[in-house]
Amino acid sequence: MELSPLLADANIEIGNIEHLSFASKIIESYKNAKIIVLADENTYRFCWNKLIVAVEFLQTAELIIIPPGEENKTLDTCSNVWEILSNYKVGRHDLIINLGGGVITDTGGFIASVFKRGIHFINIPTTLLGMIDASFGGKTGVNIENYKNQLGVFNNPIATYIDKSFLYTLPTNHIKNGFAEIIKHALINDTILWERIVKIKELSEIFSDDIFKRALKVKIEIVNADPKELGLRKILNFGHTIGHAIEGHFFNFYRLEHGHAVALGMIAESYIATKIDKLSMNEFRQIINFIKKYFLIPSIAKTEITEIVELMKNDKKNYEGKIQCALIDKIGHCMYDQPIDEELITESLIFLFFSKHEV
Amino acid sequence: MELSPLLADANIEIGNIEHLSFASKIIESYKNAKIIVLADENTYRFCWNKLIVAVEFLQTAELIIIPPGEENKTLDTCSNVWEILSNYKVGRHDLIINLGGGVITDTGGFIASVFKRGIHFINIPTTLLGMIDASFGGKTGVNIENYKNQLGVFNNPIATYIDKSFLYTLPTNHIKNGFAEIIKHALINDTILWERIVKIKELSEIFSDDIFKRALKVKIEIVNADPKELGLRKILNFGHTIGHAIEGHFFNFYRLEHGHAVALGMIAESYIATKIDKLSMNEFRQIINFIKKYFLIPSIAKTEITEIVELMKNDKKNYEGKIQCALIDKIGHCMYDQPIDEELITESLIFLFFSKHEV
Repeated sequence: MELSPLLADANIEIGNIEHLSFASKIIESYKNAKIIVLADENTYRFCWNKLIVAVEFLQTAELIIIPPGEENKTLDTCSNVWEILSNYKVGRHDLIINLGGGVITDTGGFIASVFKRGIHFINIPTTLLGMIDASFGGKTGVNIENYKNQLGVFNNPIATYIDKSFLYTLPTNHIKNGFAEIIKHALINDTILWERIVKIKELSEIFSDDIFKRALKVKIEIVNADPKELGLRKILNFGHTIGHAIEGHFFNFYRLEHGHAVALGMIAESYIATKIDKLSMNEFRQIINFIKKYFLIPSIAKTEITEIVELMKNDKKNYEGKIQCALIDKIGHCMYDQPIDEELITESLIFLFFSKHEV
Repeated sequence: MELSPLLADANIEIGNIEHLSFASKIIESYKNAKIIVLADENTYRFCWNKLIVAVEFLQTAELIIIPPGEENKTLDTCSNVWEILSNYKVGRHDLIINLGGGVITDTGGFIASVFKRGIHFINIPTTLLGMIDASFGGKTGVNIENYKNQLGVFNNPIATYIDKSFLYTLPTNHIKNGFAEIIKHALINDTILWERIVKIKELSEIFSDDIFKRALKVKIEIVNADPKELGLRKILNFGHTIGHAIEGHFFNFYRLEHGHAVALGMIAESYIATKIDKLSMNEFRQIINFIKKYFLIPSIAKTEITEIVELMKNDKKNYEGKIQCALIDKIGHCMYDQPIDEELITESLIFLFFSKHEV
C-alpha cells in the first residue's frame, strides 16, 4: 500500500507546518474555542514560535509548560493540568495542542482523553521518537513510579502534524531514541528498511525521506490492522519487554534514554530468540553488531539483574503470571505472545551486560 | 420494545445474585485471574457476604475498601487504588468487581478503564441510584474539587448484576437519591411512569417491579440510541445542570445528597421551561407539588446564588461559553442543548430558594 492514503487515514501530515492544514483546521474548527498548548520548557523555547508564525492568533492561546523528561510523565502532572483546565473552564468543544516529544504527546493525549470524558487534541511531535512512533497510533498514558504506561487509554488525536525541521534542535541522544524505533520497525517488519539503515554512514541520514517514511509506514499498517493491541500490534513491543524493565530499573539513579533501553532490550530479546532456535546465529550477529555501533552497553552490578527481572512481572502483556515477549524469528518478521521462562530472561541479561557478545 | 432483550444487550441481569450468571461467569472466565473487589465500608459490611455465598472462592479475592461518600470520588482515591493494583501486579486479563453505589461504580469503572489502558470490570450496584442509573450506560468518572465528573471515560462493564435485596439495607435518604432519577426518567420520557409514581402511597412502592423496570428501560433505550452523549442522551441531564451546581455548592459545608440536588434542579429547570413558554403552568404545578412532597427546600443566603451560577460555567454541556440545559416541554418529553441566559438561571434559583412556590 502507498503511504499517502495511509497517512490520510491516520490524520497524519508531513511537511513544513506553515504549509500543512494546521492553520486552516484551527481557524475553521476552533476559532471560538479555548485553545490550550501543552509544551515543555524546551519545546516552548525552540518550537513554540514556529506555531505562532503558522497561526498568529495562537498568541492568545493558554500555554501550560511542564518540566521536560520522562520523570514528569506522571499522574501528578496530569492532576496539575486538569486543575488548570478546570479553572480555565475548558469545555468539551475546546482543544489541546500537544507540542513536544513522546512524554508530552503521551501525557497530553491522556489528559485530553480523560478530561470531561474526552476533549479534542492535536499532536505536534518535536522529537524523532515522537514523529516515528509516539505521536500517533492511539496509545496515551503515564507511568506509576518506575512502571511504564501503567495508566492510559486508547484514543486518537484529531490530527498529527510532523515537521522535520524541529529535529535540527535536538541533541544526538534524542535522535538515538527515535533511531532505536526505526531499527525495531525494520527488524519486525521491513527487510528493505533494514538493508537501508545498515548502510548509513552518518546518523543524520535517518532523516532522509525514504528511511523516515518506511519507518512510519510499518507502524501505521500494524496499528490499522490491530488498533487495540489484541494481537498483531504486540510485535511493536519487540525489545520493549526487557527494554522497559531496564529503563525502569535505571530510572531512580540514572537517566537511561528510552531508545537506548529499547536498543538493549532488542539485543537481549534477540539473544532469547536465538537460544530457542527461532533466530539464526548469523542474523543475531548482524543485529548485535549494528546496535552496538550506536548504543553503548552500560555497567551494572550482577545483583541488579534480579531487580530488572522483577520489574518485568508487571508488564501489561503478561498472561496468567507468565512474562510474554514479541520475538523476531528472522530480520523483518516478528512473533508475539511468546511466553519466556524467567531463567532465560536472566541469562539474556547476563549475556547483554556481562559478556563480550562473541557469537 | 420489551425489556428483556434490552437488558441482555446491555449485559444487565436482575434477580437474586445467587441465581444470576455472576457465579458461572466468574468461574468460567476468571478462574485463573486475579480478582479485586472494590467496596466501601458500608458495602463491605452489609453486601460483601452475599457475594461470597454466591461464589465461595471470592473469599480469596483482594478486597480494597475505601471510605464511603461522594467526597471520596476523587483522583486521590484512584491514585491509591492504582498503586495497590500495580503492587498486586494486576494484569490486562484480571478483573475488578465494583460493589457499591454510584460513587463506587463511577470511581471503580474509571479506575479499571484507565489501568493498563483498560481491564475488565463488573458492577454490582447496592443503592437505588446505582441500580436505576449509575451502574450502567458507560459513564465513569471522578470529581475535581466541587466540579462533578470532570475526569472520566466512556466504557462499559462486562456485566451489571442488580440484586434488589441490597436495597433493604439502605436509609431513606439513599432511597430518595434513586427516586429523584426515577422522577426524572418519568418526566423526560415516560408519562405512564409519571402517572404511576404520583399515585404511590409509600416510598417503598418504588421497588415494585413495574416502576423499577420502566425506569430502567427509559435509560437503556436512550443510552443505546446515543452512547457517547452526542445528542439525545443529553436529556438524561434534565435537572442536573442546576442540580450539579447546587450539589457542588453545598459540598464544602454540608452533604446534600445527589438525588436531593437533582430534585431541586428539576424544580428550577422546570421553572425556566415555564418562563420561556415551553412547559404549561399546570404541569409545572404538578411537578413542583410532587417533588416537594418528598424533598425539602434547604435554606441558603441570597449571596450564595451567584456562587451556584458560577459553578455552572464549568458544566460539560456548555457550548461557546453559554450554559445549556435539557428542558422538558411537557411531562414525558424533553429537549436538549437549550441555551439559557444567566439572568434566568438566577431567577429560577430565587424562585426555588426564596419563594413560596405559588404558581
